[in-house]
Amino acid sequence: MYSPAAQVGLQHRQVFKLRNREVQERLDALTIEEPLEMKIAFGNPGERRHQTVAITMRTPGQDADLVRGFLFTEGIIGRAHHLQSVRHVGQALNPSAQENIILVELHPEVVFNQEKLSRHFHTSSSCGICGKTSIELVQMVTCYYPQPAHPRVSLELLGELPDKLRKAQSLFQHTGGIHAAGLFDSGGSLLLLREDVGRHNALDKLVGAALQKGIMPLRDHIVLLSGRISFELVQKAAMAGVPVIAAVGAPSSLSVEMAAGHGMTVVGFQFIYSRLTGWLSVSF
Amino acid sequence: MYSPAAQVGLQHRQVFKLRNREVQERLDALTIEEPLEMKIAFGNPGERRHQTVAITMRTPGQDADLVRGFLFTEGIIGRAHHLQSVRHVGQALNPSAQENIILVELHPEVVFNQEKLSRHFHTSSSCGICGKTSIELVQMVTCYYPQPAHPRVSLELLGELPDKLRKAQSLFQHTGGIHAAGLFDSGGSLLLLREDVGRHNALDKLVGAALQKGIMPLRDHIVLLSGRISFELVQKAAMAGVPVIAAVGAPSSLSVEMAAGHGMTVVGFQFIYSRLTGWLSVSF
Repeated sequence: MYSPAAQVGLQHRQVFKLRNREVQERLDALTIEEPLEMKIAFGNPGERRHQTVAITMRTPGQDADLVRGFLFTEGIIGRAHHLQSVRHVGQALNPSAQENIILVELHPEVVFNQEKLSRHFHTSSSCGICGKTSIELVQMVTCYYPQPAHPRVSLELLGELPDKLRKAQSLFQHTGGIHAAGLFDSGGSLLLLREDVGRHNALDKLVGAALQKGIMPLRDHIVLLSGRISFELVQKAAMAGVPVIAAVGAPSSLSVEMAAGHGMTVVGFQFIYSRLTGWLSVSF
Repeated sequence: MYSPAAQVGLQHRQVFKLRNREVQERLDALTIEEPLEMKIAFGNPGERRHQTVAITMRTPGQDADLVRGFLFTEGIIGRAHHLQSVRHVGQALNPSAQENIILVELHPEVVFNQEKLSRHFHTSSSCGICGKTSIELVQMVTCYYPQPAHPRVSLELLGELPDKLRKAQSLFQHTGGIHAAGLFDSGGSLLLLREDVGRHNALDKLVGAALQKGIMPLRDHIVLLSGRISFELVQKAAMAGVPVIAAVGAPSSLSVEMAAGHGMTVVGFQFIYSRLTGWLSVSF
């Protein structure tokens, strides 16, 4: 069962509130946005090398989940044991930035090359330009490619998910400025919830936490997002084997195409955007 | 005055609608998300070179504005005449991708180097990690750095902007899945509106359109965004000299810090997030 994490990622700030044409000063909570530099150490013992793989603007607090999920959805790692350790390595010279650099020690069996880093670039570019290449690429890269798992999900259950997510969200009620990603089982129970100022980060954190908890692949699960569904989010979910991706907001055209190509079902705005294939066995 | 553009960026798709536990098939409008590869041609006549500067997932329809704005907010160009021509150069072999590659001919006086391309990377990384560097960097790069222009904006006027933006939006009412950026003068008149599946693209399109129409820098203007305010959006607005950035959603901590560093005022969720400096002369 889901148990809420400690509140993270909030900053209080003096603001001017406007009401009835009056200006009042008060404290307001803002979602923290800070850069995280993600570094990996890879190679055989004795010849380890370090490399920065990404810098992302994120809400601090679950950085280990974020970097785990990012490395997984980008295809740099495929299994939990590929991560030997995750730790912050900020410079002592700048204490306020202590938490903004994180280092992941990769298992020597992980073959890292620069090409993997540019995967995202290639898939983004090829999808609309050259056709179906990006779909094939995800199939090649992930080791958890969606298989026909046929989770049975009732429409009633789907309809209840947004409320469950909202009630469990810790940050949104304070700031109104954060995205959430929730992982539900096919019975509608919330297993994991992650929040971030960036929606791709919220999903990466969720995938990273699932990997850490040993519940990958997510073949009998539903991922629910608080925002809109973009191409990139479908791609990340596909990497984790997710059959159903739902959102409070609307999906884009390409995200629906991508999902159809992966045999995934997209649910948004109370609509189901792909044909009801074997992936979603509707019962009501 | 603002006059609405033709409707672009919509795709109709057969979906399943759930209502009263019944599944009905119907047509629904989706916001189109497609990749755009942005290429530049630069250098002296006789030795022109081509380079891909970015690939972004965007809503098609105002690609010329998007690439103009992107090149400007990334600091690659500084003036309208730096753009000699903008045109789609899709390959004939793949007609569906005709519109997904755009080429900008830069004026020979524009000095382009790879370093400029990595500006964004550096500013993102340095801000939280090394302190104020990113603010100084924007000051160095833009030729329209905010100057004390002291636009007078009443609180009443600010409060009316979100409604004006929503009424003028063409896509949102159809899909619910698109971001908007509006440019208002200090009297509250909507001058320009741009929409995109990506909020950074919506702002780039707006800045690109302003550049094209010869109304840069935007020192007496207000930019209103439909979503949340992130660090990157404040940075882009600062490049265009915008003194007031407002949003229907909440700003992040770093976006408020950045704005304060630039002397800009952030308005979000009916709150003004930075001290009322000379930038915003409130009258009511």
